[in-house]
Amino acid sequence: MSKPSRIEPRTLKGFRDFLPAPMMARERLIEIARRVYRSYGYAPIDTPALEYLEILQGKGGDESDKQLYQFRDHGDRAVGMRFDLTVPLARFAAQHVGPHEGKLPTPFKRYHIATVWRGENTQRGRYREFMQCDFDIIGTKSIAADVETVLVVHDLFTALGFDRFTIRVNNRRLLTGLLETLDLADRATVILRALDKLAKAGRNAVAAELVDVAACTQQQTERVLGLVELTGASDEVLAELEPRVADSETAQQGITELRQLFAAVTAAGVSSQRVALDVSIARGLDYYTGTIIETFLDDLPTIGSVCSGGRYDNLAELYTKQELPGIGASLGLDRLLAAMEELGMTADVATPAPVFVPQFTAARLGDYLRLAATLRQAGIGVDVSTEAKKLGAQMKYADRRGFRFALILGEDEFTQGVCKIRDLASGDEHSAPLDDDYQAVVAHLLEQLGPPTA
Amino acid sequence: MSKPSRIEPRTLKGFRDFLPAPMMARERLIEIARRVYRSYGYAPIDTPALEYLEILQGKGGDESDKQLYQFRDHGDRAVGMRFDLTVPLARFAAQHVGPHEGKLPTPFKRYHIATVWRGENTQRGRYREFMQCDFDIIGTKSIAADVETVLVVHDLFTALGFDRFTIRVNNRRLLTGLLETLDLADRATVILRALDKLAKAGRNAVAAELVDVAACTQQQTERVLGLVELTGASDEVLAELEPRVADSETAQQGITELRQLFAAVTAAGVSSQRVALDVSIARGLDYYTGTIIETFLDDLPTIGSVCSGGRYDNLAELYTKQELPGIGASLGLDRLLAAMEELGMTADVATPAPVFVPQFTAARLGDYLRLAATLRQAGIGVDVSTEAKKLGAQMKYADRRGFRFALILGEDEFTQGVCKIRDLASGDEHSAPLDDDYQAVVAHLLEQLGPPTA
Repeated sequence: MSKPSRIEPRTLKGFRDFLPAPMMARERLIEIARRVYRSYGYAPIDTPALEYLEILQGKGGDESDKQLYQFRDHGDRAVGMRFDLTVPLARFAAQHVGPHEGKLPTPFKRYHIATVWRGENTQRGRYREFMQCDFDIIGTKSIAADVETVLVVHDLFTALGFDRFTIRVNNRRLLTGLLETLDLADRATVILRALDKLAKAGRNAVAAELVDVAACTQQQTERVLGLVELTGASDEVLAELEPRVADSETAQQGITELRQLFAAVTAAGVSSQRVALDVSIARGLDYYTGTIIETFLDDLPTIGSVCSGGRYDNLAELYTKQELPGIGASLGLDRLLAAMEELGMTADVATPAPVFVPQFTAARLGDYLRLAATLRQAGIGVDVSTEAKKLGAQMKYADRRGFRFALILGEDEFTQGVCKIRDLASGDEHSAPLDDDYQAVVAHLLEQLGPPTA
Repeated sequence: MSKPSRIEPRTLKGFRDFLPAPMMARERLIEIARRVYRSYGYAPIDTPALEYLEILQGKGGDESDKQLYQFRDHGDRAVGMRFDLTVPLARFAAQHVGPHEGKLPTPFKRYHIATVWRGENTQRGRYREFMQCDFDIIGTKSIAADVETVLVVHDLFTALGFDRFTIRVNNRRLLTGLLETLDLADRATVILRALDKLAKAGRNAVAAELVDVAACTQQQTERVLGLVELTGASDEVLAELEPRVADSETAQQGITELRQLFAAVTAAGVSSQRVALDVSIARGLDYYTGTIIETFLDDLPTIGSVCSGGRYDNLAELYTKQELPGIGASLGLDRLLAAMEELGMTADVATPAPVFVPQFTAARLGDYLRLAATLRQAGIGVDVSTEAKKLGAQMKYADRRGFRFALILGEDEFTQGVCKIRDLASGDEHSAPLDDDYQAVVAHLLEQLGPPTA
């Protein structure tokens, strides 16, 4: 059989491999998100990567259509790869959620941690495949759900190890009402899309867009920007805003909801430093109708919001006549991971097992394996070398992988009845008696490693 | 804005949604697989769902090409969705594994838990999207790696809660050598493919295929089948086989490797009931070259192997000149999940939080939230009702979701300074004093729920 010519091993533009160290950081992040979502009663679901194209395109404008990976499958069906987790949730809810027996009851609380695909322009440093961690509660209009959403995001970032982050909250009704008072309600979508760029593009660019694209007058532009740029404690800003939007019932309702939300979040024990009113937050997507939130890392504000979401009136109207109001947020997992790397919050360790057992001679493999089995039963991960090579070569491998301890067990040690436990960072060695059930080795390692973590 | 006409909410044929209860079972399974793989030092990686088509087709024959989801992307590149995790591993290893600085050292041990797609015929009850949990160790020819593979599978099924399963082991060299002695070496691939069907199709069908497709004589057919059908303790079967394949060095090497493997697995403390020699196992894929394994559930043998794998001489030869021998196995996660459901090994619970807090009045939301935050800090998941509806309606919801406890806190309870803890299965109620920091409630629930589990 002649060898085929070689194929260049490479990934597609905009796609990437996750090597062990970053993948371990990613798994830790997913694990923490799962734990927090679950602690509030959100249950996991999964949906297919491929959906009928008409399901995916139902809501999207031209922009998302261009980004959609679409093709015809073996049965000549027009299909697409999901580009977010909200459209699949809407389709899922239309099929599976409802008041009848056998359906999932409302409020329906789900989280969904999965990959999505968008054929985006990679020049902006964007990837075409990335993981999202969404949670939503649907089938409820209660402000308690909005409060819970903020609490989940708060607990999530706290659990991830951040102590400097800000959840910025706004309410679409306030913005919409404000536009009503300025006779700009008919241009709400383009105006909100422009406001969404305030943090990144700056005041002048947004002002120009309001004039050029949304056809606002200079006066309207100034008034819109003057209101959304109000800063300060949430109760003070709301007190300042209230008289200015007195003739809009919608805006008043937004203010009332914001007051209820901040009061409950404070009552739940969350520091006011972590949750702030930000009237400039607009979230360009036009399906939000009430509370909207964005989350910023105080030490890395330039990367933008790492967890965003909001309230919608009717999630699944394209697929069912059942009305499903709700609220949810999406954690941009890969963006957050990049941020954590930049902030030095991830460890560069390429092994999930802290202990390495070099193999001195294949004749002792049974002993090494029994010892390893005992350690694993105690919750200690162990990598037993597969090669009875020279110790130096094995220790060099151990160094590259990043193990914390090596158990030195050559013939001398077996003869003396000891196990040498070498700390690979400090080089220190501790001798533990090699008793029958290896409990001295287990005890020493447990003491050094501390309790097992996720 | 006029409403668009509704789109029928549905999934593609061969695809499915995972609802909360099965998804929780699936997450538990993934969690256990991760823990076991990690305890042996296997590290996670991830690769893109989409690859260049030439990468995916490199090794596949016509059969897998037909099943491949393929299309042209926005840049007119021929791309495909991964159909297994082995081809991506080979491509990954060619790019990232090697002896040089900055590369991942060998032996390289990785696990990969990810979705794959095959446009299979759904009439056989197959899905077109399913999750695989693979682990491999590459860059080593040592039998210690084969031993470890068997141990990982053993620990995995034990950790999943199975006490009746059998890991069936064979060695390709034994089969190949056997065919050499029968002058059938040139037809090895078709013969092994036929033998692979022995468990499912039966002796007669396989005999017919050996004659018709592989052009074996009746005598050759009988001799092949006679050898692969030997049963009994592994050392007895090997002793029986040895003289019959005495003139094949390859077969002798296979027998030696099998003896080393069984000896080490026994030395590591694994029951001989869990690991058995099965000379009939062939694994149709022609890239296996040494040890091959399959795993059967003793209580559900008809579903076939739920975890299979084997040793290969050169994983990535299509993509690199670097030689990468190794061994690995793949857990058929969704097939195993279906089996566990059939065996009653999965719980039908649709909430990850065991405790429900109905809301009597919105005015008490702050109290409910503080209590819930305290419970979560103690590791107890809590779902606080978002609706201050009638208690009956809220308890009906609690019943449908499957909570274990409800905390009854109406105005009466607040006045009396107690929290009623209702066991939703038995209906029993326990009253805990409503002390300032809720520790009596925490203590009672921790006692009832036991320590938190994955």
